[in-house]
Amino acid sequence: MRVGIVGGGQLGWMTVLEGRKLGFEFLVLEEKPDSPACKVADACFSYDKVDEFLRWCHVVTFEFEHIPDYILEKVYPVALPSVEVLELKKSRIKEKSFYKRMGYPVPSFRIAQGKELPSLLRDVCLPVVVKRDVMGYDGKGQYVVNHPQDAQVIATSYPHEWFLVEDWVDFAMEFSIIGVRDKSGRVLLYPPTVNFHQQGILLYNKTTSLEVKEAQDILHHLMEDLGIVGVLAVEFFYTKDGKVLINEMAPRVHNTGHYTLDGCYTSQFENLVRAVTGLPLGSTSLKCPAGMVNILGLGLEDLDLHFLLSVEGAKLYWYSKSKKPRRKMGHINVVGRTEEEVEYKINRLLEMYHVLEEK
Amino acid sequence: MRVGIVGGGQLGWMTVLEGRKLGFEFLVLEEKPDSPACKVADACFSYDKVDEFLRWCHVVTFEFEHIPDYILEKVYPVALPSVEVLELKKSRIKEKSFYKRMGYPVPSFRIAQGKELPSLLRDVCLPVVVKRDVMGYDGKGQYVVNHPQDAQVIATSYPHEWFLVEDWVDFAMEFSIIGVRDKSGRVLLYPPTVNFHQQGILLYNKTTSLEVKEAQDILHHLMEDLGIVGVLAVEFFYTKDGKVLINEMAPRVHNTGHYTLDGCYTSQFENLVRAVTGLPLGSTSLKCPAGMVNILGLGLEDLDLHFLLSVEGAKLYWYSKSKKPRRKMGHINVVGRTEEEVEYKINRLLEMYHVLEEK
Repeated sequence: MRVGIVGGGQLGWMTVLEGRKLGFEFLVLEEKPDSPACKVADACFSYDKVDEFLRWCHVVTFEFEHIPDYILEKVYPVALPSVEVLELKKSRIKEKSFYKRMGYPVPSFRIAQGKELPSLLRDVCLPVVVKRDVMGYDGKGQYVVNHPQDAQVIATSYPHEWFLVEDWVDFAMEFSIIGVRDKSGRVLLYPPTVNFHQQGILLYNKTTSLEVKEAQDILHHLMEDLGIVGVLAVEFFYTKDGKVLINEMAPRVHNTGHYTLDGCYTSQFENLVRAVTGLPLGSTSLKCPAGMVNILGLGLEDLDLHFLLSVEGAKLYWYSKSKKPRRKMGHINVVGRTEEEVEYKINRLLEMYHVLEEK
Repeated sequence: MRVGIVGGGQLGWMTVLEGRKLGFEFLVLEEKPDSPACKVADACFSYDKVDEFLRWCHVVTFEFEHIPDYILEKVYPVALPSVEVLELKKSRIKEKSFYKRMGYPVPSFRIAQGKELPSLLRDVCLPVVVKRDVMGYDGKGQYVVNHPQDAQVIATSYPHEWFLVEDWVDFAMEFSIIGVRDKSGRVLLYPPTVNFHQQGILLYNKTTSLEVKEAQDILHHLMEDLGIVGVLAVEFFYTKDGKVLINEMAPRVHNTGHYTLDGCYTSQFENLVRAVTGLPLGSTSLKCPAGMVNILGLGLEDLDLHFLLSVEGAKLYWYSKSKKPRRKMGHINVVGRTEEEVEYKINRLLEMYHVLEEK
């Protein structure tokens, strides 16, 4: 069996490393041949070789949503999850409107063009979060607006572009759940994690035994409504007044599920491969409490590996990408006997940032 | 950092897959370019390219003991563990004599040439196990002799070859422990496993909470006596009269430690890489009881993957080798909440052999 992956980033890299254990071959469609997944794949194809890529693949999945339309059209017949789900992810307005239409709980939002923002924002409660409709991930294209005049710069820069204007959510907690669904419609959910972002990028997360039944039901229904075959991650807000709201979803393996490599019976990556190749899903049970710390914008040479790897149960995943400010360069998984032990270890690992700030 | 591995089998394959997570590059020295480790390494070199291989490697380790002397001489300066330990493994007589000389408990043995066996065996209690001095692994070159005349065929075939003649051990249990030792001399031991062989080849094993303090002390001392930097696996007999005897050792990652990939905080493969590259060792603690079933002599087409992978917590590792009778083709790891649960799952997995026998 040969599995194609569109996108060559670290999510693809881990999918290949995990999926190889099952004896499958992996082909990657990616413009940059030095990207992480290309280094471990059996072959890597650029977009202009998409026809050849497809001739070899039995099934194609995604590790990235922002794929040109002509590529999506080509991979359509063998793509899992379906290309329709990806279309939804290409537009924040389409995504949020879908949730609203289907009755899922989301923060209140409006839709406006850039030039309309200053007048619109005079009539709404501030702050709001203004999000570009397209190409949004890792906090990119998002602006917190506290005063109507703050929107003037957006209006001037992008007068004709569409924006989602979302009420500011005063959340008590951000959490996510990852689900996997196979071809027969069987759904398994991973344990929820509490997530901590920094400037819109996930900094760390950890598993929690908190009851989140409402969110689990939402994820389960959403996987069915979207007809997902593969993995779906949903990020939620838990508001201070006790409401669960969908923040966003990703129809692929997700940064908040990296802990599954060491914490769960079967990783999200292996379960993606199992789902799209028609194998039975693996158990999503937790072996022990777990967590993850992202390494943002640091090179291997900036890290004190002796310190980091001497934290008991800490495992480094290094993506071997070129260093850029705030880029996800790698992550460290931790496991422990209790949630408190995992939290203690995460705090120790986060010291790597403090140490560097003091330099 | 570039790590060289001599040998391209499944042990090297798993070492590369695990070691890549740390961001290292892996080069493999192997005569067969289609071997498992070559498929995931950054580069693969044949023996005649050993000089080039060494020019690129910062450190070299082994996944196989039976390496030509001229290769061992070349890799000597950068090899971990040291080449001396491998020399010991190239001869069963040298290995057993070393244990005896150092005061480690081993079954009683004699040394003889093939032609001397029939007369020797008239004077000893039978049965005995006659083992060729060289090239012995996976039960190869071993003969259980019940009657002196059984040795005649060995005497005729190999008159001048040396043999180890070992007392038959009436064991209650075979078990093994794997240890890892870093450059500073720090030693960590993995939990012991009970091992079940079939015709000299490991069929399955599982972790045990049995107390094996004496064996742990033996392994600890042996790692120090041999100056191991890397992994050392020791297989023991536990005799019916309560004695612990060394059966044999392997100065490398070991089939009885495959369970560590899913059962332990850090796998034996990652810890080998950490040890030889000078990183701190990872915890060898068990996350949960675990076990492993080898897939011997079967192709992917012979397996009912839907059945095997629907066993909760079962994970397939498929080496993608060409099928040969009794060859190690892959393995399945299992984890569970209790030792009993693991045992139940192993028994379910072993049904794959019964199903095939009935065909």
